[in-house]
Amino acid sequence: MPNTPAAPPLYRRLATHYRGAIEAGTLAPGERMPSLRHLMRLHDISLSTALQLCRTLESDGWAEARDRSGYFVRKPQRLRLAPMDEPAAGLRPDPAQFVGIHARVSAFVAQRRAAEVKVNFSIARAAPQLYPAEALRAGITRALRLRPELLAAAPPLQGDPQFRAVLAKRALAAGMTLSPEEVLVTNGCIEALNLALRAVAHPGDTIAVESPTFYGLLQVLESLGLRALEIPTSPQSGLSVEALELALQTYDDIKAVVVIPHLQNPLGSVMPDAHKERLVKLCESKGIALIEDDTYSELLDVDSAPRAIKSWDRSGNVIHCASLHKILAPGMRLGWISAGRWHARVEMLKYAQTRNNEVLSQLGAGEFMASGAYDRHLRRLRTALREQRERTAEAIAAYFPAGTRLNLPNGGLQLWVELPGACPSADVFDAALREGILVAPGWLFSNSSRCDHYLRLNCGWPFDEVVDGALKRVGQIVGGLAR
Amino acid sequence: MPNTPAAPPLYRRLATHYRGAIEAGTLAPGERMPSLRHLMRLHDISLSTALQLCRTLESDGWAEARDRSGYFVRKPQRLRLAPMDEPAAGLRPDPAQFVGIHARVSAFVAQRRAAEVKVNFSIARAAPQLYPAEALRAGITRALRLRPELLAAAPPLQGDPQFRAVLAKRALAAGMTLSPEEVLVTNGCIEALNLALRAVAHPGDTIAVESPTFYGLLQVLESLGLRALEIPTSPQSGLSVEALELALQTYDDIKAVVVIPHLQNPLGSVMPDAHKERLVKLCESKGIALIEDDTYSELLDVDSAPRAIKSWDRSGNVIHCASLHKILAPGMRLGWISAGRWHARVEMLKYAQTRNNEVLSQLGAGEFMASGAYDRHLRRLRTALREQRERTAEAIAAYFPAGTRLNLPNGGLQLWVELPGACPSADVFDAALREGILVAPGWLFSNSSRCDHYLRLNCGWPFDEVVDGALKRVGQIVGGLAR
Ligand SMILES: Cc1ncc(COP(=O)(O)O)c(C=O)c1O
Ligand SMILES: Cc1ncc(COP(=O)(O)O)c(C=O)c1O
Repeated sequence: MPNTPAAPPLYRRLATHYRGAIEAGTLAPGERMPSLRHLMRLHDISLSTALQLCRTLESDGWAEARDRSGYFVRKPQRLRLAPMDEPAAGLRPDPAQFVGIHARVSAFVAQRRAAEVKVNFSIARAAPQLYPAEALRAGITRALRLRPELLAAAPPLQGDPQFRAVLAKRALAAGMTLSPEEVLVTNGCIEALNLALRAVAHPGDTIAVESPTFYGLLQVLESLGLRALEIPTSPQSGLSVEALELALQTYDDIKAVVVIPHLQNPLGSVMPDAHKERLVKLCESKGIALIEDDTYSELLDVDSAPRAIKSWDRSGNVIHCASLHKILAPGMRLGWISAGRWHARVEMLKYAQTRNNEVLSQLGAGEFMASGAYDRHLRRLRTALREQRERTAEAIAAYFPAGTRLNLPNGGLQLWVELPGACPSADVFDAALREGILVAPGWLFSNSSRCDHYLRLNCGWPFDEVVDGALKRVGQIVGGLAR
Repeated sequence: MPNTPAAPPLYRRLATHYRGAIEAGTLAPGERMPSLRHLMRLHDISLSTALQLCRTLESDGWAEARDRSGYFVRKPQRLRLAPMDEPAAGLRPDPAQFVGIHARVSAFVAQRRAAEVKVNFSIARAAPQLYPAEALRAGITRALRLRPELLAAAPPLQGDPQFRAVLAKRALAAGMTLSPEEVLVTNGCIEALNLALRAVAHPGDTIAVESPTFYGLLQVLESLGLRALEIPTSPQSGLSVEALELALQTYDDIKAVVVIPHLQNPLGSVMPDAHKERLVKLCESKGIALIEDDTYSELLDVDSAPRAIKSWDRSGNVIHCASLHKILAPGMRLGWISAGRWHARVEMLKYAQTRNNEVLSQLGAGEFMASGAYDRHLRRLRTALREQRERTAEAIAAYFPAGTRLNLPNGGLQLWVELPGACPSADVFDAALREGILVAPGWLFSNSSRCDHYLRLNCGWPFDEVVDGALKRVGQIVGGLAR
């Protein structure tokens, strides 16, 4: 496989065009697609391109072939999957608690290690060939050649100046006005979250988080001796600001709110701008730190960057955390933090915790991100991920039992699937793992039992027969276990 | 300057030979050195080599030129400097306290930033040209070429297997039997110390440390909400185990002892094996975790590696932490930890804190360390450092006022200097900084005022006229301030 993904081929671009026409209703389900000959003339393409176009529409679920009479428009099967419910009306959170996630994660890891994993749906990143490894490699090699002293001298404490300048510049597109000096480079978003929480809270304090949320965050809370208060969260629009308001009436010791505004993990939800703005005002008025985990924003399938929560921040009350791990290079540990009024404290904690980051990957990433290649890479990655999400959803619609629910998020690396008949995802996890298929069970994402019949499925790998077959098996397992 | 330090030139090796003869008394002070012609015949060397030899002995303080009559043996001036006192008899530690180091370090950093630093004696690493940057660069470039997917895939969580294998193998020389699985790669020794302390203690707990100790450790304690109990420490033999025993009678809430057994920072002390063994037994019998910071051992100027404290550990009660930052590559953030019975907890904390380390520098360092080049590098570095320490000590003897005290450590990057007449190092720091000379004042290394008339001076840079001139100025400043 080539290291740098190529621009989408012609047939793919045409498929996107036809899909748009079907979604818009210009082509109705059941209608006959233009014939191959017609397509060839219409778009001035070869027979093989026309064929590839039709087959792509078919495999993506937008057309079906009928013997001898050509291709017909159809609605993708996944549209038959019901969307998930919004969080229940009461919106009262469960009591804040010290997380017990370590034990669960340890069990998860131990089971995984004991098994031979053939297909891994539990991770949260894309396949290696979807990242521009070759261009990054060239950049690093060049930097080492030009500045051989790099390895022998201590790097700048806050991070490489050029890399920070690129980050500050890109923040502009998300509505944030940051000077490079306000950006501190960290070991991934996870270190940024650690520093943010350590800066604003002390052991024993309560932190409001989305429910469900990514288990890495729950682990950080547990390791820092913090209590998690899970706030009801919509699979569509993210954290319920209303529910948070309600919680604040009961809990007067909440020190911070951690929120993943775009493509929340695991939900895939995206907060509307009005919610983000309201959240900023709420936290500011209550003197509660607002920590924004912006790990996935660049994977949102829209033309211009969504507005970061921090873009509404006027008082330094929002701490912005992000990372390149999912979007540019899983082999690098590059994250960053803009800590607002906690900047000096975060800088001190970073120094005391890990000192400066190594500079090599910053130089490679910084050079790449300063060029047009970065946005080209992101567009390709988003296109590939959309296709993979859609085909995964199509497979779920085909193989999972009736009653399965799914929201198809507008971007990102994964699908959050609600199993029917209160099917316990823990049992699905066990049964699938026995066949070498690893899924992320819902109980990793919450302290409550609310997610026990959910699965999170990665869509970061190109959809092929192996993936298809594994999804089929998981569907059969769910079918067997659903009551 | 070349990137890889060359083998010591012939005149240097001969200088070491003559120095040995003077130290052994074979050549007595006042005696005439062999003439240049004699040296040429004796060692079959050129006139210029013979001249370089004599000039080196002169500048290192082992000989002096007398007009027309050649070179005469002399005792280095530094031998006139009195050694430091051992810690006072009582040995009762000051009360344990929450460190207030952040404020002091912040003041230090702010002052430093405001000034233009021309000569920096405050750091704790060697000059870039003393590290094998070129060989490491080649290794990394090669690794990237052979394994281009490195940047696009998640690296192994515990660290690169080959790198860990090399670390485990080298640990053997220090008497430790570790499997690669017991070694966890971290972001420098500082992250290792954070993880160790987080694994064994909770906020509010008391940790026994050497007094003085390196301010980075005091910062870690402060940032984790831990109390520091400073245990009297000998400039010669390190932590006083006796004083620790006494402290344990008074304090029953000590959770861990952190100790730098070899080339303690700032003292340069080296613990005798009997003390290390006694310390291991004491901590084990009291159920107190023993954290060993092994950052400087490879810089000890001896032929075979000193025994690590962990080599006496039979119950997993010793946590061993180390790093390549000072000895191989200041541009890399490579440390490691072997956490004994806390291994699983440390691994979990590492995952929650920063995830895996990047793999590139591990591959570069691992390859280099597996070859003979590593030991060759270390020997050269030690030789260069010895020369630099000796010349620095010589300059101190020449320029600092009478009553200045100094122990010349048997290795490492720095000298710890006691100023006479209770001269306040804070004032020396201010006055020197006004002239662009940065020194590390004693008050960075202890919560007590015990170190207020000490300086720590880096010897990591090749001794030249600039260094000499700067030491002369510092000496004059001290002379002006000493009462
Ligand atoms: C929402 C979210 N934040 C942070 C992280 C961790 O990011 P990084 O790898 O940059 O530390 C993840 C990874 O799974 C994530 O899903
Ligand atoms: C005794 C000691 N331990 C640890 C460290 C930090 O080491 P690293 O740079 O590997 O994090 C230092 C650095 O000054 C030190 O002197």
